[in-house]
Amino acid sequence: MTWIATDYASLLWWLDMTGTYVFGLSGGMLAVRRQLDLFGVIVLATAAATAGGVIRDMAIGDQPAAMLRDPSYLLVTLLAGLTAFFFHRLIECASKPVMLLDALGLGTFTVAGTQKALIFGLHPAAACVIGVLTAVGGGVIRDLLVTEIPRVLREEIYAVAAIIGAGLVILGDHLGWSPLLTTSIALLATFFIRVLSVRLNLRIPRAP
Amino acid sequence: MTWIATDYASLLWWLDMTGTYVFGLSGGMLAVRRQLDLFGVIVLATAAATAGGVIRDMAIGDQPAAMLRDPSYLLVTLLAGLTAFFFHRLIECASKPVMLLDALGLGTFTVAGTQKALIFGLHPAAACVIGVLTAVGGGVIRDLLVTEIPRVLREEIYAVAAIIGAGLVILGDHLGWSPLLTTSIALLATFFIRVLSVRLNLRIPRAP
Amino acid sequence: MTWIATDYASLLWWLDMTGTYVFGLSGGMLAVRRQLDLFGVIVLATAAATAGGVIRDMAIGDQPAAMLRDPSYLLVTLLAGLTAFFFHRLIECASKPVMLLDALGLGTFTVAGTQKALIFGLHPAAACVIGVLTAVGGGVIRDLLVTEIPRVLREEIYAVAAIIGAGLVILGDHLGWSPLLTTSIALLATFFIRVLSVRLNLRIPRAP
Repeated sequence: MTWIATDYASLLWWLDMTGTYVFGLSGGMLAVRRQLDLFGVIVLATAAATAGGVIRDMAIGDQPAAMLRDPSYLLVTLLAGLTAFFFHRLIECASKPVMLLDALGLGTFTVAGTQKALIFGLHPAAACVIGVLTAVGGGVIRDLLVTEIPRVLREEIYAVAAIIGAGLVILGDHLGWSPLLTTSIALLATFFIRVLSVRLNLRIPRAP
Repeated sequence: MTWIATDYASLLWWLDMTGTYVFGLSGGMLAVRRQLDLFGVIVLATAAATAGGVIRDMAIGDQPAAMLRDPSYLLVTLLAGLTAFFFHRLIECASKPVMLLDALGLGTFTVAGTQKALIFGLHPAAACVIGVLTAVGGGVIRDLLVTEIPRVLREEIYAVAAIIGAGLVILGDHLGWSPLLTTSIALLATFFIRVLSVRLNLRIPRAP
Repeated sequence: MTWIATDYASLLWWLDMTGTYVFGLSGGMLAVRRQLDLFGVIVLATAAATAGGVIRDMAIGDQPAAMLRDPSYLLVTLLAGLTAFFFHRLIECASKPVMLLDALGLGTFTVAGTQKALIFGLHPAAACVIGVLTAVGGGVIRDLLVTEIPRVLREEIYAVAAIIGAGLVILGDHLGWSPLLTTSIALLATFFIRVLSVRLNLRIPRAP
């Protein structure tokens, strides 16, 4: 475990890469299930892992998009795609760890997206929207590419966990908490709300 | 009626908010009909009301997108989503007023989008494309999110009304009309062409 | 044949317009097949021909997007849409020339997109992604608008030809080849790989 980050910036980077890998895996697995070829698997992995961040960067005006500046993103999504392609049977069996990793990715992308929006001077409501968009945007594009209604619109508490996480980042920023504290609280809240909602099968009300 | 705008800029702002609310309503209603939960209703309301403007701002390079700078947009879409969620039965019964409001939204978004494109120095053909994209882009994203072929591609004269409205804005700009005159003529033309096409059931020809 | 380009920049421009026309044709033909009206035909032609370039320009930050600055793009897509609308029967019969033109469009868009990404200072992996996105992005949006799974995800070697073409542009740039030589090699490679894959019915492996 010598790679464990020793400072805050590199902790964020590792969290971002974890989210990228896990979301890439979700895209690759969907492509395998829809019987796409190797190229399709890599495309869906890349879309799922990076589209949320690219849309965020295009909307706030940070260009070229972060994923085009740091080659690590593309390397990690390629790895995720190849993992899904060659080990999809193994991964199917490990649905619980995958769900946990996905909840972790949801948390890291929410926190990273919201913090970036605040740095770019957006007001709280817009920062919250951008944070949630960063976290769920990749999954939306992934599902649209195979013409499915995005899972985030069909699922139990998924985006709601991201909204709460984004809200905590904004609260921490407002109250002047240290970045490390804000990140930890928001990340853990998003993670546990998502995991609990799956375990307890919580749902949001529908129109009466 | 004391809130009625007394100057041109605030008239434009009120028109923009009206369009945002009405398009938000259309997104929320579609979500209710597709039995999405409260979160899905708010997402579809937001997408329908803001996606056209966000795509416009990303394409012309006005970033952060307008909807991220003025919190009113998000507040209005939230209200539209909640209205659709709680009063969808009432709204279903009022299909004619909703159609009229939708035609008004089409007009305001077309005019606002075309004028912004001209201010950014685009040539007339590009300004027309951007104006129409502003007006119909939200509806396209709304329909794609629930995997329907966008209504603007299936409908009677909808985008055509927007094209004529955008053309009138460009004509007025070219002939040096006052902004208020240009706005009024283009807005009313878009509105009445749309409404008449629905009443008279006009259609565009298909390939022979 | 007096319009034949006499220098490199205008050769690139003619190649770009050829790609725009051919991709516009593909969008218009799909719209006719799906029985859309004249407006839908022009929209799908425009989306297929320009969306790849617009997404590229939004991601790398070249705004307003190229297609909004040079009116030729919109004129050419309009022509392509009208051609598809009035001559779709004729074009259906000429499926082989259309396939050859489509492969040419794939080559020109790949080369133009990759070179632009390199000029904007992107690293090689990102330039490759942007080149492929420029070439296949329009087709993806075209197919999503009529809720079909994008052909690039279902097809034989299509994007792979673009990846190889983009790789050759990056290699030529790295080795200091003249732009004309790099363009020719990458364009011909993309074209012939695509054409051969169709003739020989080559496929990429699926997950075991």
